[in-house]
Amino acid sequence: MLVYGDLQSGNCLKVKLILSFLGIEHQWIHVNILENETKTPEFLSINPNGKIPVVVLNDGRTLSESNAILGYFAEDTDFLPNETFQKAKVYEWLFFEQYSHEPNIAVARFIQKYQGMPESRIDEFNSLQEGGCKALALMDSQLSQSRFLVGEQATIADIALYAYTHVANEGGFNLSNYPHIQRWIASIAAINGYVGMS
Amino acid sequence: MLVYGDLQSGNCLKVKLILSFLGIEHQWIHVNILENETKTPEFLSINPNGKIPVVVLNDGRTLSESNAILGYFAEDTDFLPNETFQKAKVYEWLFFEQYSHEPNIAVARFIQKYQGMPESRIDEFNSLQEGGCKALALMDSQLSQSRFLVGEQATIADIALYAYTHVANEGGFNLSNYPHIQRWIASIAAINGYVGMS
Ligand SMILES: N[C@@H](CCC(=O)N[C@@H](CS)C(=O)NCC(=O)O)C(=O)O
Ligand SMILES: N[C@@H](CCC(=O)N[C@@H](CS)C(=O)NCC(=O)O)C(=O)O
Repeated sequence: MLVYGDLQSGNCLKVKLILSFLGIEHQWIHVNILENETKTPEFLSINPNGKIPVVVLNDGRTLSESNAILGYFAEDTDFLPNETFQKAKVYEWLFFEQYSHEPNIAVARFIQKYQGMPESRIDEFNSLQEGGCKALALMDSQLSQSRFLVGEQATIADIALYAYTHVANEGGFNLSNYPHIQRWIASIAAINGYVGMS
Repeated sequence: MLVYGDLQSGNCLKVKLILSFLGIEHQWIHVNILENETKTPEFLSINPNGKIPVVVLNDGRTLSESNAILGYFAEDTDFLPNETFQKAKVYEWLFFEQYSHEPNIAVARFIQKYQGMPESRIDEFNSLQEGGCKALALMDSQLSQSRFLVGEQATIADIALYAYTHVANEGGFNLSNYPHIQRWIASIAAINGYVGMS
């Protein structure tokens, strides 16, 4: 199995984490988005949406969208509850991540860390802080009530939200305002098989 | 069961469609976002993220995120394949919708239809056209190969993408450029139990 990705990208780290937690062998192929390697004809034939991560199974079938990949590998494991409502709560967090969290926190991080905060994006950067803080506050509130985002066991909801939350400081967010998130970050990093961004 | 929503919102229409296709009884409670009805203390106690749609089950448990709601009701029905990889392909489209489709097409529609294209958002509106067209082209390409987005039967991937695609013209998109999408829109509107926005 092949995985195309970049470990500095939270969306890709999600895939690395689930594969590592579950001990699933794979070959990691580094893709550099800053050099437009996601826009080559070869890459677009694997993912026409031109984004990493993407997984190529041994039979050649492909799967993109980090959170769909998480769901695929987590099925029938402890990382995805079997019970319908609990499973739906996990997906609620996964969609929240893609809609209300990543577009604020990952983009702010990109502007600050990779683009070095260009003048032209400072207003955008500032406006991302509000949405990002709101998303972090929502997570912190849930984590004041349960050990993980859905119940007392780590699920793919935690893996997905961990990806950009644990480096949110690189996007200008101050995690010391969110004590429950800090506790939770430490408990994810303590899971057997944990790997970081570098 | 209660559903809080606004039928003019594609995210809410998704929920109405799955409930209607499956014949699930519910009470629809209209929420006006333009009058900030999603920001009252009462509403925030139901969905702390302050967004519609949200479902309140008979036992009081709540579920938000339109696509998580779709997954919840579709489980064990024809609208969600049982086979793990096919199911993951459905979720791939659902995440694509929230990340690459809705933020372009629904936002362009909001600016044009609800805000009447204010001067201050014209640049943003124009830049949303590119991402929106790319998303439509990707769908059209898939629909040139299969009857529905995942295989030959309608799934929640189709319901989710239908929601804003069928009104994309209200966001400045010209659907006559996408013949396979047009055929597909007609076939969804022909499903037993179909309801529209008004
Ligand atoms: N919704 C996608 C987002 C993936 C994404 O945005 N990937 C970035 C890297 S973190 C990328 O490939 N960007 C290149 C591009 O969009 O051109 C997912 O969750 O996998
Ligand atoms: N990711 C959410 C998005 C929901 C959403 O953005 N809802 C809009 C109406 S279409 C809303 O409630 N907006 C009010 C607000 O965000 O303040 C979903 O799919 O349910």
